[in-house]
Amino acid sequence: MIPLDRQSPTAIATAVNDGKATAVAIAEATLARLSAYDAVQPQIWISRAEPADMFAAAHAVDARIAAGERLPLAGVPFAVKDNIDVASFETTAGCPAFAYSPAASAGVVEKLLAAGAVCVGKTNLDQFATGLVGTRSPYGIPRNAHNLSYISGGSSSGSAVAVAAGLVGFALGTDTAGSGRVPAAFNHLVGLKPSKGRWSTRGLVPACRSIDCITVFTDNVSDARLVDDVLAGFDPADPYSKPLADIALRPQRIGVPRRDQRTWFGDSQSEFLYEQAISLLKADAEVVELDITPLNEAASLLYNGPWVAERTAAIEELLNSNPDAIHETVRQIVTPGLNMSAVEAFNGIYHLAQLKRHADGLWDQVDMLAFPTTGATYRVAELMVAPVVLNSNLGFYTNFVNLLDMAAVAVPAGIRPNGTGFGITLIGPADSDQALLNAAATYLAKADLPAPPSLDLEGRMETVKLAVVGAHLKDMPLHWQLTSRNAALVGSFETAPTYRLFAMADSVPAKPALVHSEDGAAIKLEVYELDAADFGSFVAEVPAPLAIGTVTLADGSSVKGFVAEPRATKNAEDITHLGGWRAYIEMS
Amino acid sequence: MIPLDRQSPTAIATAVNDGKATAVAIAEATLARLSAYDAVQPQIWISRAEPADMFAAAHAVDARIAAGERLPLAGVPFAVKDNIDVASFETTAGCPAFAYSPAASAGVVEKLLAAGAVCVGKTNLDQFATGLVGTRSPYGIPRNAHNLSYISGGSSSGSAVAVAAGLVGFALGTDTAGSGRVPAAFNHLVGLKPSKGRWSTRGLVPACRSIDCITVFTDNVSDARLVDDVLAGFDPADPYSKPLADIALRPQRIGVPRRDQRTWFGDSQSEFLYEQAISLLKADAEVVELDITPLNEAASLLYNGPWVAERTAAIEELLNSNPDAIHETVRQIVTPGLNMSAVEAFNGIYHLAQLKRHADGLWDQVDMLAFPTTGATYRVAELMVAPVVLNSNLGFYTNFVNLLDMAAVAVPAGIRPNGTGFGITLIGPADSDQALLNAAATYLAKADLPAPPSLDLEGRMETVKLAVVGAHLKDMPLHWQLTSRNAALVGSFETAPTYRLFAMADSVPAKPALVHSEDGAAIKLEVYELDAADFGSFVAEVPAPLAIGTVTLADGSSVKGFVAEPRATKNAEDITHLGGWRAYIEMS
Repeated sequence: MIPLDRQSPTAIATAVNDGKATAVAIAEATLARLSAYDAVQPQIWISRAEPADMFAAAHAVDARIAAGERLPLAGVPFAVKDNIDVASFETTAGCPAFAYSPAASAGVVEKLLAAGAVCVGKTNLDQFATGLVGTRSPYGIPRNAHNLSYISGGSSSGSAVAVAAGLVGFALGTDTAGSGRVPAAFNHLVGLKPSKGRWSTRGLVPACRSIDCITVFTDNVSDARLVDDVLAGFDPADPYSKPLADIALRPQRIGVPRRDQRTWFGDSQSEFLYEQAISLLKADAEVVELDITPLNEAASLLYNGPWVAERTAAIEELLNSNPDAIHETVRQIVTPGLNMSAVEAFNGIYHLAQLKRHADGLWDQVDMLAFPTTGATYRVAELMVAPVVLNSNLGFYTNFVNLLDMAAVAVPAGIRPNGTGFGITLIGPADSDQALLNAAATYLAKADLPAPPSLDLEGRMETVKLAVVGAHLKDMPLHWQLTSRNAALVGSFETAPTYRLFAMADSVPAKPALVHSEDGAAIKLEVYELDAADFGSFVAEVPAPLAIGTVTLADGSSVKGFVAEPRATKNAEDITHLGGWRAYIEMS
Repeated sequence: MIPLDRQSPTAIATAVNDGKATAVAIAEATLARLSAYDAVQPQIWISRAEPADMFAAAHAVDARIAAGERLPLAGVPFAVKDNIDVASFETTAGCPAFAYSPAASAGVVEKLLAAGAVCVGKTNLDQFATGLVGTRSPYGIPRNAHNLSYISGGSSSGSAVAVAAGLVGFALGTDTAGSGRVPAAFNHLVGLKPSKGRWSTRGLVPACRSIDCITVFTDNVSDARLVDDVLAGFDPADPYSKPLADIALRPQRIGVPRRDQRTWFGDSQSEFLYEQAISLLKADAEVVELDITPLNEAASLLYNGPWVAERTAAIEELLNSNPDAIHETVRQIVTPGLNMSAVEAFNGIYHLAQLKRHADGLWDQVDMLAFPTTGATYRVAELMVAPVVLNSNLGFYTNFVNLLDMAAVAVPAGIRPNGTGFGITLIGPADSDQALLNAAATYLAKADLPAPPSLDLEGRMETVKLAVVGAHLKDMPLHWQLTSRNAALVGSFETAPTYRLFAMADSVPAKPALVHSEDGAAIKLEVYELDAADFGSFVAEVPAPLAIGTVTLADGSSVKGFVAEPRATKNAEDITHLGGWRAYIEMS
């Protein structure tokens, strides 16, 4: 098996510049890696360079080095999200009917090639970069590199996986709502979303033209900085390009969401890892809890306000001429944009200006934000059932950033038991890119995270989350039925306040019955995660009148869990007022 | 008669601060002036301060001075356009049905009052600041202070006249398409349109919220600078306010429209005065002819593109609930905004971004622009006949400025024979306000213009423009019929290329006949301006088969002029190929 360890552009370029390696040899090794991973997830690619073309490009790099040049990205293989033009490939934006052959490469691609990097292909994406999931593409669903049951995150799905799987040294993504950050978090990567206008967007298929950014995924911060060094700069041919600027920023006061405003969508693992991250940050800085209501309000403009019409504007012709060519979920999102009025658009712009003024005020209170990149992650199967709602959950901490003209660096911040990554994003005002990269490097040095888990090459088992309320709780008589099945504790939660809890009569060992009732209360429970097979065998052992159904948690999310037949409450004692089974046992 | 000479805020404030005058005495004199001019144009006001309130305010200023304060605008009377909130007045925006009582004064008004200025009232305007003419108000039509037949310019009509008539030391206007510059030109004033965000727009009724500016009219540059000193600065409560900045700028290269792109709408007097202005500028700087196509394109977005929907957004509720309450012309302009889509809005925004990029490139070629403020002016009677087209003509050199985020200072640049003002506008990039004011002062010192003509207190005669093609040309046998009627030469022009010229048979003295024909050519002619009575007596003397009809000029505009009955060409010689009568006479 070819080793699919991650590659460092810095190391490769140094070796090639110093004559310790040739770009041709790197290309050869890269082709072997690509071929090996094609056995796992060929769908992360939409098109790939012919080997002969890669060798020709590599050979040209070697010739330049031989002629005495030093090239910052000499021989570094890279991938490009397929909504960014590369002259030698079709651009599809994830939609075959939209495909075209670009006359020239995008501004950023030109710079990378000139710096000696070698393009290996174009990566899959959520169609028209509309999504944070990776499931919205007719070219297949790229999955998390570390757990194939889970989403890769999107829309820059293929690019993130290509870097995580060690196929390339870096990959270009794009970011409008969080597409350059969410897949970084899930795949244990660094994702740099530069300030608007810092990197040229010439040659990019627009998602929301006024706020789109091109981004990069790398294994670490110094590699991201290397790419930024090559790409940052004014492009007069891009109306949204800005003169290069870097503001100084010492991250002494770090903003985090106010505790009661943090949202985990039932994923206490994320909550736990975020608390850890905050503890680390506290060692060097003051951590300030912020009211994030105005940020949430800005975020909601992106999909519930007139900015949807920017997405519509980008594909209006196709939407009118051949709507069936557009991915169903994407079409469902962009179609309402056809009926939005210019008056609504301008009113939205005024509203955003107001929110931006408030957000700018945040920089008086804090120097930088450190937010969860996402509050949760999901399995591909979950996304297929609720493609829009779960996608929205993923944007909770990312959607506001581009609208409010901020820069962001997503960094790894821990590993979930299922192998997927949890990340935090450092966010600063426009032009704080370099300062954020510095802060990210400092944070990662301090965090000293374990290496990313091994790649998932064969598909891990699917897992199921299960809520238990009684004898299966930790330290209770039937808890062994979970531990023996390698169930991992997700966390302790409460139900929605719509349940009553009864101590059943004549049950041995003593067991409760959880019964849904509008006149109810919040009941304490524990959520575990099991492989699907273990879950199945567990369910098989559940005795009547208990059953495994669906339980609604306090945050509105649902998990599998113990419920009861009506007969369970016969002669039972209503112990709802105690709030949970443990309190009842302790009183008994 | 009370002398209605112009007032200088600088002089008044100095006198009051130095104890040479009291604010109360200034208020008393101001009330006398106001009352005197009420006999001429009461319609420049929508509401006026009660004398008791003015005296109370003036008294408070005197008390502050007595207590040892120095106030930059001590005792200076000022007027406020009625789309800007002043707490003690209703705000109407020129529409009674829209009127409301503001809870607080606008940010700029707060600052002026704190600086010791005394507000005398709210001025008339083109309704909702939609217009450059001054004719679109149910409160009456403010007319040019120096010729009551002519428009004052708008939309800040009343404010400009109030300053020109010496009623106040300065007056606030607003500017979206040119409303703070056009009336300055027509009334021989300085009009400062600051950079977007330099002066707070809090408390302003929006026209196009994203590009509106508050402006000031003064008699001279140093008074404008005095007001800017008080008003410039960041207002955190205004989402469109910006941190104060001033860029250095030495106007060594001055951009003017390429000669073939200048448009005068038949007003060669403007052309003449503009040439004079350019000659003056050439003494100290290089004058560079620019291709203004991209500026024209940006300008056209304002009324032919989605920005119309900003005007609609500002009054959507009234437009839906009570459309008849809106001035007919304004309603005709804003109603299409209801049917513009958000997609169109965003596409317009992208288009503007592109044009902005090009415009920013202008600053590599030149340091500053010096454009005509308008290419022409019009009589009120003309506006009543063609309210939209003539208005558009007036915006030709002004509409692009705010969309492209430029600063501008309109300055006087000459006097037309009819007493109305011609002006040029110095235009620079955002934050060049102080540099532009310096350049304006330098220009005016060099220009050494005659004093503004006397105020028109009784109504000058209406005038008519007349094109002559034959025996009435200068030095021709019937020219005396014009000179004896005090006709003023407007200029030499050509017809549209749709005329044929014939030398009539048996005509004494020899006379031509001008005949409209699609298969024609451009024919040389001269345009004169006469009082309406003189014109009438002239027409009375025109012999058959000639007549006075309408002649289309090369630029598409029309004037009264000599035409001919069909019989005029009987046995006549077609001399079209000579291009004019003078060539024929010289050959004879």
